[in-house]
Amino acid sequence: MLRNDQLAQWDRENFFHPSTHLAQHARGETQTRVIKSASGSYIEDREGRKMLDAFAGLYCVNVGYGRQEIAEAIGDQAKELAYYHSYVGHGTEASITLSKMILDRAPANMSKVYFGLSGSDANETNIKLIWYYNNILGRPEKKRIISRWRGYHGSGLVTGSLTGLKLFHKKFDLPVEQVIHTQAPYYFRRDDLNQSEEEFVAHCVAELEALIEREGADTIAAFIGEPVLGTGGIVPPPAGYWPAIQAVLKKHDILLVADEVVTGFGRLGSMFGADHYGLEADIITIAKGLTSAYAPLSGSIISEKLWKVLEQGTDENGPIGHGWTYSAHPIGAAAGVANLKLLDDLKLIQNASSVGAYLNTSMKEALGDHANVGDIRGEGMLCAVEFVEDRQDRKFFEASQKIGAQLSATLLSQDSVIARAMPQGDILGFAPPFCLGREEADIIVASTARAVKTVLG
Amino acid sequence: MLRNDQLAQWDRENFFHPSTHLAQHARGETQTRVIKSASGSYIEDREGRKMLDAFAGLYCVNVGYGRQEIAEAIGDQAKELAYYHSYVGHGTEASITLSKMILDRAPANMSKVYFGLSGSDANETNIKLIWYYNNILGRPEKKRIISRWRGYHGSGLVTGSLTGLKLFHKKFDLPVEQVIHTQAPYYFRRDDLNQSEEEFVAHCVAELEALIEREGADTIAAFIGEPVLGTGGIVPPPAGYWPAIQAVLKKHDILLVADEVVTGFGRLGSMFGADHYGLEADIITIAKGLTSAYAPLSGSIISEKLWKVLEQGTDENGPIGHGWTYSAHPIGAAAGVANLKLLDDLKLIQNASSVGAYLNTSMKEALGDHANVGDIRGEGMLCAVEFVEDRQDRKFFEASQKIGAQLSATLLSQDSVIARAMPQGDILGFAPPFCLGREEADIIVASTARAVKTVLG
Ligand SMILES: Cc1ncc(COP(=O)(O)O)c(C=O)c1O
Ligand SMILES: Cc1ncc(COP(=O)(O)O)c(C=O)c1O
Repeated sequence: MLRNDQLAQWDRENFFHPSTHLAQHARGETQTRVIKSASGSYIEDREGRKMLDAFAGLYCVNVGYGRQEIAEAIGDQAKELAYYHSYVGHGTEASITLSKMILDRAPANMSKVYFGLSGSDANETNIKLIWYYNNILGRPEKKRIISRWRGYHGSGLVTGSLTGLKLFHKKFDLPVEQVIHTQAPYYFRRDDLNQSEEEFVAHCVAELEALIEREGADTIAAFIGEPVLGTGGIVPPPAGYWPAIQAVLKKHDILLVADEVVTGFGRLGSMFGADHYGLEADIITIAKGLTSAYAPLSGSIISEKLWKVLEQGTDENGPIGHGWTYSAHPIGAAAGVANLKLLDDLKLIQNASSVGAYLNTSMKEALGDHANVGDIRGEGMLCAVEFVEDRQDRKFFEASQKIGAQLSATLLSQDSVIARAMPQGDILGFAPPFCLGREEADIIVASTARAVKTVLG
Repeated sequence: MLRNDQLAQWDRENFFHPSTHLAQHARGETQTRVIKSASGSYIEDREGRKMLDAFAGLYCVNVGYGRQEIAEAIGDQAKELAYYHSYVGHGTEASITLSKMILDRAPANMSKVYFGLSGSDANETNIKLIWYYNNILGRPEKKRIISRWRGYHGSGLVTGSLTGLKLFHKKFDLPVEQVIHTQAPYYFRRDDLNQSEEEFVAHCVAELEALIEREGADTIAAFIGEPVLGTGGIVPPPAGYWPAIQAVLKKHDILLVADEVVTGFGRLGSMFGADHYGLEADIITIAKGLTSAYAPLSGSIISEKLWKVLEQGTDENGPIGHGWTYSAHPIGAAAGVANLKLLDDLKLIQNASSVGAYLNTSMKEALGDHANVGDIRGEGMLCAVEFVEDRQDRKFFEASQKIGAQLSATLLSQDSVIARAMPQGDILGFAPPFCLGREEADIIVASTARAVKTVLG
């Protein structure tokens, strides 16, 4: 059997890890962590260390680890037919069944699903379809996309531009010019501390209106947003935000893309964030929760309104020139079918809702009064704690102090609990599997309180 | 059990197929084909029809269908650990082992591999890294990418721009301005019929030189090309093309990306096209053959020269802001390890070389003298037959006659053999699994001859 130090050496010599300090890792200054097995909310590394994964991978292993029903569906599909393409009317029982299962669960105005691999490529597909749509409608100038600062929509050239986080732009010449950013609905970080939530929403809306005015509605094709900001800090929108934004978009004939890569299939305690906030999206992006990450699969759910124009487009221009070799890959489709079934059978969305509420309440009880805790917020099975140097006047820590990263490292080293230091700000993020038990929620909260005590006193 | 007509209806109602005439399919004018199982070079649909797949899916099922060794590796991995992320030094035994296996097989100047899902996203990663590289080197203007007409490099916004086929640009506002196209090394389609191969190569080189002169070498970052043009028509380069092109690129300090999504891992009878043609690439794109499509996995193999600059970049700027949730997905990694092992154990690359040569020779014997056959060409386990209205003066058919599509449809309906009508021109493409036997090659050739007789006489 391979030794761990051997693997670590191969890793340093050959493996280009995402979002990593490449030089430090190659020099062996950061650790290689080889994950070996996992079950429920726990993962175990090759040295036998067990960790409570309160971030479900990258908020994606929604049904929890080690689900043999999904593993068997994957294994069976691999044995019978690991691959055939889905171009020009080809499919498999799993991919067709999954397309129906998705539409059965999606909001009523949705019509078809295009399958990709990653959340990023699904958003890439979305932009292509939106441009195609406006070309077919004879509006070749209506092409720019509005996204929000702190939004996360992927890591490609254009999808990384949609992403409104500096780390993903730096040294990559992003954002590209077709993407424009507007205010994040992040009440805790409002500029004017005297604003009420209602005033802050009015301010977000006014900023959007001004941007559309400035750029011209006839140049703007779509607005993309996560129902709850995820990687930007796990920030549920203030009350009234979505209805007010959607009214503006409707007025200017701007499409709405709801990026539900994190929120889709139950993370908020509802099937979709669109249901949760009463959004009528034109496209819904799905990925992570679609398969609980057991196999790569993403999707773009397209509304009937868009689909009709795409049909017209192919009647006028022939087959649509868009496709990935692995669109609707049978392994991903089999995982998706088994995963959605498991969500229903075990009532996991209900559990996400109730245990998620318990986690949020417990976190507030444990840490709500701490002098360095500025905000505790969440929705469904999402929770975030934001740290400040001084809660009275909401003074943030210097970024160079890396308080968020320290807290996450301490939580892991002290109590083997994984939470994520969100990339912009000192924010600990929690997004456990939906199967989390109350005792596990208790462990997460107690360990977090301990880590806060260690780092901040 | 689900009935076929039920699935066909669900398909029409819910499934957005890639590269499809959406309106016709939704109206039920094109067929839904549900593929059920497969073995060796054969696939079988849900109605019990068995077909000889002479295109190996989308030239990707290189080891052939139904390999239980890979299926079991996938199933076992799914049971033990279906997912954990690979950010910040995380990995699995499979992903680390695979990174080493890839570098062991790659040309000597290669250093690290970044894992993605699709060939498209790997090329997207490449462009991001190339831009980053030139930013770190303080050459912010050196960013544009030269690609070739008829190249295929993906279907995203920028990767679809690299692709030099009209079908993939139409109504999508592509190519984007950072991409410039140059001459395809397609000797059969040269403008000047009097040119020798040598003169044609000189012409390609002169065109590239002129383009670089016109745009300024200080604005051009990279050149991307498939060692053998694939989707553009399965066109091996004329002798001397690659050395001459590479000399120009070196002179102007322009990076070379070898897109080996089709050619990587043996399709040409060599491990890489770079070996086959003596290329020294700065980045090699891999996908399809890496897993034989048993699970989605792609990669960008990065040379030591680039890697050093990326390291410098992270020393100066911190962690690199690039990553997909499913980078180095454990299921894909397990499939890759088992697939590369099988290639070796069964000597499949040698078989691709010898049976591929046999297929090409037999095709020439059977069809070389036909009045409508303009060209028969191939390399390794790739073969193409190009049809013309008149071979004497190389007069092409009108595109509206759809001769290529007719031939492919006839081949399938008459003899249940799948070949691909390449998208631009009347070209039948063959890219069978590497395990193809000589008897199967005989069937492909005889059936093709029959289809040609039916359609063209
Ligand atoms: C909301 C959202 N959209 C898109 C993506 C991109 O997904 P992927 O990493 O699969 O490309 C993510 C990933 O975290 C996400 O959170
Ligand atoms: C040479 C080449 N590069 C890239 C791609 C894109 O790969 P994918 O379809 O997996 O995105 C393909 C697909 O056929 C290809 O042939």
